[in-house]
Amino acid sequence: MAESYGFIGLGIMGSRMAANLLRKNFKVKIWNRDGAKCEPLLTLGAQKVGSPREVAAGSDITFAMVSDPAAAREVCFGAEGVAGGIGEGRGYVDMSTVDDETSRAIAEEIVRCGGRFLEAPVSGTKKPAEDGTLVILAAGDQELYRESIAAFEAMGKKHLFLGEVGNGARMKLVVNLILGDVMAALSEGMALGKKAGLSGEQLLEILEAGALSSPMIRGKGALLLKEDYTPSFPLKHLQKDLRLAVALGDRVGQPLHCTASANEVFKRAVAAGHGDEDIAAVHQVSS
Amino acid sequence: MAESYGFIGLGIMGSRMAANLLRKNFKVKIWNRDGAKCEPLLTLGAQKVGSPREVAAGSDITFAMVSDPAAAREVCFGAEGVAGGIGEGRGYVDMSTVDDETSRAIAEEIVRCGGRFLEAPVSGTKKPAEDGTLVILAAGDQELYRESIAAFEAMGKKHLFLGEVGNGARMKLVVNLILGDVMAALSEGMALGKKAGLSGEQLLEILEAGALSSPMIRGKGALLLKEDYTPSFPLKHLQKDLRLAVALGDRVGQPLHCTASANEVFKRAVAAGHGDEDIAAVHQVSS
Amino acid sequence: MAESYGFIGLGIMGSRMAANLLRKNFKVKIWNRDGAKCEPLLTLGAQKVGSPREVAAGSDITFAMVSDPAAAREVCFGAEGVAGGIGEGRGYVDMSTVDDETSRAIAEEIVRCGGRFLEAPVSGTKKPAEDGTLVILAAGDQELYRESIAAFEAMGKKHLFLGEVGNGARMKLVVNLILGDVMAALSEGMALGKKAGLSGEQLLEILEAGALSSPMIRGKGALLLKEDYTPSFPLKHLQKDLRLAVALGDRVGQPLHCTASANEVFKRAVAAGHGDEDIAAVHQVSS
Amino acid sequence: MAESYGFIGLGIMGSRMAANLLRKNFKVKIWNRDGAKCEPLLTLGAQKVGSPREVAAGSDITFAMVSDPAAAREVCFGAEGVAGGIGEGRGYVDMSTVDDETSRAIAEEIVRCGGRFLEAPVSGTKKPAEDGTLVILAAGDQELYRESIAAFEAMGKKHLFLGEVGNGARMKLVVNLILGDVMAALSEGMALGKKAGLSGEQLLEILEAGALSSPMIRGKGALLLKEDYTPSFPLKHLQKDLRLAVALGDRVGQPLHCTASANEVFKRAVAAGHGDEDIAAVHQVSS
Repeated sequence: MAESYGFIGLGIMGSRMAANLLRKNFKVKIWNRDGAKCEPLLTLGAQKVGSPREVAAGSDITFAMVSDPAAAREVCFGAEGVAGGIGEGRGYVDMSTVDDETSRAIAEEIVRCGGRFLEAPVSGTKKPAEDGTLVILAAGDQELYRESIAAFEAMGKKHLFLGEVGNGARMKLVVNLILGDVMAALSEGMALGKKAGLSGEQLLEILEAGALSSPMIRGKGALLLKEDYTPSFPLKHLQKDLRLAVALGDRVGQPLHCTASANEVFKRAVAAGHGDEDIAAVHQVSS
Repeated sequence: MAESYGFIGLGIMGSRMAANLLRKNFKVKIWNRDGAKCEPLLTLGAQKVGSPREVAAGSDITFAMVSDPAAAREVCFGAEGVAGGIGEGRGYVDMSTVDDETSRAIAEEIVRCGGRFLEAPVSGTKKPAEDGTLVILAAGDQELYRESIAAFEAMGKKHLFLGEVGNGARMKLVVNLILGDVMAALSEGMALGKKAGLSGEQLLEILEAGALSSPMIRGKGALLLKEDYTPSFPLKHLQKDLRLAVALGDRVGQPLHCTASANEVFKRAVAAGHGDEDIAAVHQVSS
Repeated sequence: MAESYGFIGLGIMGSRMAANLLRKNFKVKIWNRDGAKCEPLLTLGAQKVGSPREVAAGSDITFAMVSDPAAAREVCFGAEGVAGGIGEGRGYVDMSTVDDETSRAIAEEIVRCGGRFLEAPVSGTKKPAEDGTLVILAAGDQELYRESIAAFEAMGKKHLFLGEVGNGARMKLVVNLILGDVMAALSEGMALGKKAGLSGEQLLEILEAGALSSPMIRGKGALLLKEDYTPSFPLKHLQKDLRLAVALGDRVGQPLHCTASANEVFKRAVAAGHGDEDIAAVHQVSS
Repeated sequence: MAESYGFIGLGIMGSRMAANLLRKNFKVKIWNRDGAKCEPLLTLGAQKVGSPREVAAGSDITFAMVSDPAAAREVCFGAEGVAGGIGEGRGYVDMSTVDDETSRAIAEEIVRCGGRFLEAPVSGTKKPAEDGTLVILAAGDQELYRESIAAFEAMGKKHLFLGEVGNGARMKLVVNLILGDVMAALSEGMALGKKAGLSGEQLLEILEAGALSSPMIRGKGALLLKEDYTPSFPLKHLQKDLRLAVALGDRVGQPLHCTASANEVFKRAVAAGHGDEDIAAVHQVSS
């Protein structure tokens, strides 16, 4: 049974996830590239240390939540990285969203150093991270998955074990493929309705009453009406996932006519300067 | 206040809707092209008459629910049609799904004959028709809308007044555009996941736990897993709506990149012989 | 053997086509809605008359080249229309670009009035009309086709007989489908090359040297470089043909993934106000 | 002035290109992984040597034409690779089709070893290679480009210098993007025409007479009519280029709606088992 935990990466997502661990009385060592971001967590009982290596060396299980594949590699392979501290039998759970090649490279290095590895990207953004209602897509070392369940339950409302390393990353791509297509569909429907003289409010009311009713349609629909594109899930990140999903389809021989169209529409939105806004901002290039 | 009602068209949808009126003790005159389909409703208290004209002549408000624009025109303009019986002040509520041109032609004829007209296509298929949980998209004569509310409440869980004749048809197209895009997205996601070695059951479990959770994803997802394409909403009807939505986009100057892609995918499914199966059958041409 | 000819419709195309007939010493009666446009042809020997009916009544074969289906119907069915003058055995050759429904309606009326009918839309725009190098896609009465060959050879460099009425219209849609897709492809290639730091001039030089070399790539490529969108073939007309091609695909069960995408891109260009510019103007919405 | 030449890679393309050098009396050292393929060239005067390193060490300019990025890297970086033999001032011209990252890696290595580098992918397939009518897209060392012109003129009908290393690869992607889109367009047009009851022969005759007339439409059109998919340009290679073009669009912020659609259609053809057939085989998944 794990008794000590580490958390690396305290951005929008990581800071909220680590806070949930602390509130449930987990003992957590923390590290962040910009050390100032550690402060708020110290009052919750976190212990700040000097490097990813130190976090890993001092924790039964170390979680990481960083922004992209490059950061994930640096945290693992860097001079003061997790690989240098993981030692025999300790666990590393990378919850960052990375491509499966990166994930496998990190897995191999951790195992080579004697550690155990689990990739565990999440579905859900800021609000679910804060509320502890993320969905956690774990894959890799099944033993480590079992030992991580207590922590996963503090951070998410659901966790699944998906098999070999890479399946977590791939599952997340599939989920975000659907998310991107649905966002584009809602945007096209709203745009067509508006040009056809229909009320956007009534359209959303009808969708809400029918089989399409979902938190996503409800939430993003309201944003489209207000033309409020404050980022919850930055558009450029979703576009990246659509691109990777299309590329995955290429590798496994799966044509994706609709997703490819959605990818180009989101790409248009990025090119028009909306990459840092919310995914709902795709609406701005709808016509 | 309306006291007598008529119902024309007793197919999959109409028979269930009329039954709900009868169960709520509305007095209903009925007519169907194939008279045999009237029988089950007689035991619920319906009164069978000889023509659409007779239904209209003997009812304060006559509802119709037929299969396509040609049938809707025939029921109105035919030798023994509604127009011939509607007379001064009576109401005709056409709940069939038709294009807005057809709807306007019927509206003009009814008004020319002294009647009042409301188009009221519905969102929802067999099950909601049976359960009285349809969403009713009414447009046209607002007075008639108010008088129809008691009946609408017997047939649906929600009803809206959308303005001028044609808006009901257009709103339904917009809703079905989104439905078609989402169905195609789910199908592509499931297909990609399968080829990438992921579990379809886990994918649905994850979707269910997240922002995309909806009755539609849940219901159609289960069908995709079972490869059960028993028609609830026949694929060819949804493809027709996608086609009409793209054409509406053409008229009002709204590009619809994703919907156009989805339309071609559904068209491929129709061409491959899946038009009479459920919309979920689009999955059979996913690769 | 026909000895007297009529020509109805003297716009950009028709005026040039009629002039070619006159230059080859055909006797031609002419009519145009705006009579002033007849003047330049009078000096070439044309005889101006008062109505389409008069043209048809006084000509062995009457040609028409008007702008759209509504005008084509008016010229035939109008109070002073061709149908009223065609009489027994005379020929009517409608060279306008119309949908096949319109073409069939006109064919039926002409035949009902004792005349013979040929649809003969053309491939080619202003320059080929002027040079007498149009490609003429004839369908309908084969006898009339044979009798029209002398005139077709004055107006075009190639003429084909395609079978029953409607085939001319359909063949033209297929040709313009390919044209639209190629125009969109060239635009995307030029746009990508530019953003990737390549020279547009060199790209065109390479295309010219390879298997893709065509008058269309050469001509439109040069326009794209100069950003010169002076209309030779107005974009909105090509978009209409793409729309009709997609709709034809719908009727005959042919998915058209790429054409549907091109149609949306051209639709976007129309919505952005480029409908009256040349088809090359699609480039303006390429990013 | 270069006096001795090398040629590495004697597959479908390379064997024909090297033969053209030999027929023009260039002195050429050759090497191929499967040595047996050298035999036919020996009778033309080629000198077979034991490794890429030996070719490079013994030639003023060494050309390579291998099948993919992995082979291109092996030929350069391998134990007996070009890098080991290039020495001071000699030139290496890689005419293989590779991504620009591979091209840049090879360029750096060659320069590091004292050599000069030119990438020079070609536009054109088997027949132009045989006829010496390739189009050569050179980029990199401009001096080396000038020195290679005599050899380029023996192998191609046109050669251009496009600037920095990578531009050759990128230009080829853009050209093949257009080629792929046009192939898909022709296939859709032919398929629609057939289902609409039109003659494919007449369609091609019309295209041939108009602005779209090109060797490509003529050649591939004839193949489509005969349903002859003997590979001249293997479909899977074109699909790879479409994929890379879409990815390039992603990097430089260029949406490519039509190309993305074409990519998915070609991907469908690969998934259906037509990857090793000619690009015209995309027609087999047209419906």
